[in-house]
Amino acid sequence: MTDQNLEQSTEKIALTPATHTTPPAKFSHGVKKGNILQVAGQVGFLPAVEGQAPTVAGPTLREQTLQTFANVKAILEEGGASWDDVMMMRVYLTDVDHFAEMNAIYNQYFEEQGLKAPASARTTVYVGLPAGLLIEIDALAVLG
Amino acid sequence: MTDQNLEQSTEKIALTPATHTTPPAKFSHGVKKGNILQVAGQVGFLPAVEGQAPTVAGPTLREQTLQTFANVKAILEEGGASWDDVMMMRVYLTDVDHFAEMNAIYNQYFEEQGLKAPASARTTVYVGLPAGLLIEIDALAVLG
Amino acid sequence: MTDQNLEQSTEKIALTPATHTTPPAKFSHGVKKGNILQVAGQVGFLPAVEGQAPTVAGPTLREQTLQTFANVKAILEEGGASWDDVMMMRVYLTDVDHFAEMNAIYNQYFEEQGLKAPASARTTVYVGLPAGLLIEIDALAVLG
Repeated sequence: MTDQNLEQSTEKIALTPATHTTPPAKFSHGVKKGNILQVAGQVGFLPAVEGQAPTVAGPTLREQTLQTFANVKAILEEGGASWDDVMMMRVYLTDVDHFAEMNAIYNQYFEEQGLKAPASARTTVYVGLPAGLLIEIDALAVLG
Repeated sequence: MTDQNLEQSTEKIALTPATHTTPPAKFSHGVKKGNILQVAGQVGFLPAVEGQAPTVAGPTLREQTLQTFANVKAILEEGGASWDDVMMMRVYLTDVDHFAEMNAIYNQYFEEQGLKAPASARTTVYVGLPAGLLIEIDALAVLG
Repeated sequence: MTDQNLEQSTEKIALTPATHTTPPAKFSHGVKKGNILQVAGQVGFLPAVEGQAPTVAGPTLREQTLQTFANVKAILEEGGASWDDVMMMRVYLTDVDHFAEMNAIYNQYFEEQGLKAPASARTTVYVGLPAGLLIEIDALAVLG
């Protein structure tokens, strides 16, 4: 183990970016314990506004995907991690016909992020989501 | 790393509560290796009765959800873990209209469990499940 | 911790078997960091042929499942792991009616693999997949 590992606390901490909407139930947007960081399923909700219900970034796949990425990234950063630490992303789409467009958005986004480590693994499946949501993403990261 | 980590075996062991029904294929209800504990997808099956096929706790979401929680918890405990060690729960529902009711059951259950650590992360998606099953949950835990 | 753990690098590396088709987006077929190895969602694509689009092993569940297993295994081996290190497999089917047949194929395959450690945990759910694909599998492994 490296010195970095030796320094990591094994206490479980919640990762709650100030911009995030309150989860709809008793779960955390992210948790970190030791060198493992788990991001809960994120959707395209805009930064929370007090007294307002969560609002989706827009009706399009592009708007929702980019906002979802921003929401995942905020949780990673809250835990001292970055995209480079992500091992697995699970992408949930509602429509098989969105696959090519999502991949194009995905590729452009991660090119712009300037990853230094290899891209994470990924699984994409097509499921039901609450009305109006086209994409949900969660992520597992292992810190350095 | 804490002393506890140093003591954890890196041997992979199966976690099979005595009450659990035999899995329908060659997989384990739970496995533990080092400080990682993975719980397989659990459904609302009642404790196994020898010579009988698995029986679901009841037709309602409430009955199935509470039994599913009990089944996940039994596996965690078999591995020396508790809800406090859970990093991620994946909740699979068959019907988007069950989301609010599941969250209410979820919140009440975890309040009653008296968690000491932050709640785990969670992803909920809507998928197909075998006939009669309304919910399936799996969990990833990192031990202290 | 064993000597093996102490020797494991905490650098994140991509696992890309030579036989694998290029992923349809900027993600890795597998990644490894420290003792954690994540295999991306694999489907029944035959070994890549340069200049040709990915080709599925066949139309049947049996053909696709066995090829998917081979694809997962190649990534595990690329990372110095084996089925014995797998903690969790997620099986995505498109049809509930395929469950029994998949389990039969699953059981026979893993009997033939001669596992030395307990079988991994598993979750099976029913989702949409791109046209022609009947099964997708991803896997999380913890190395010894």
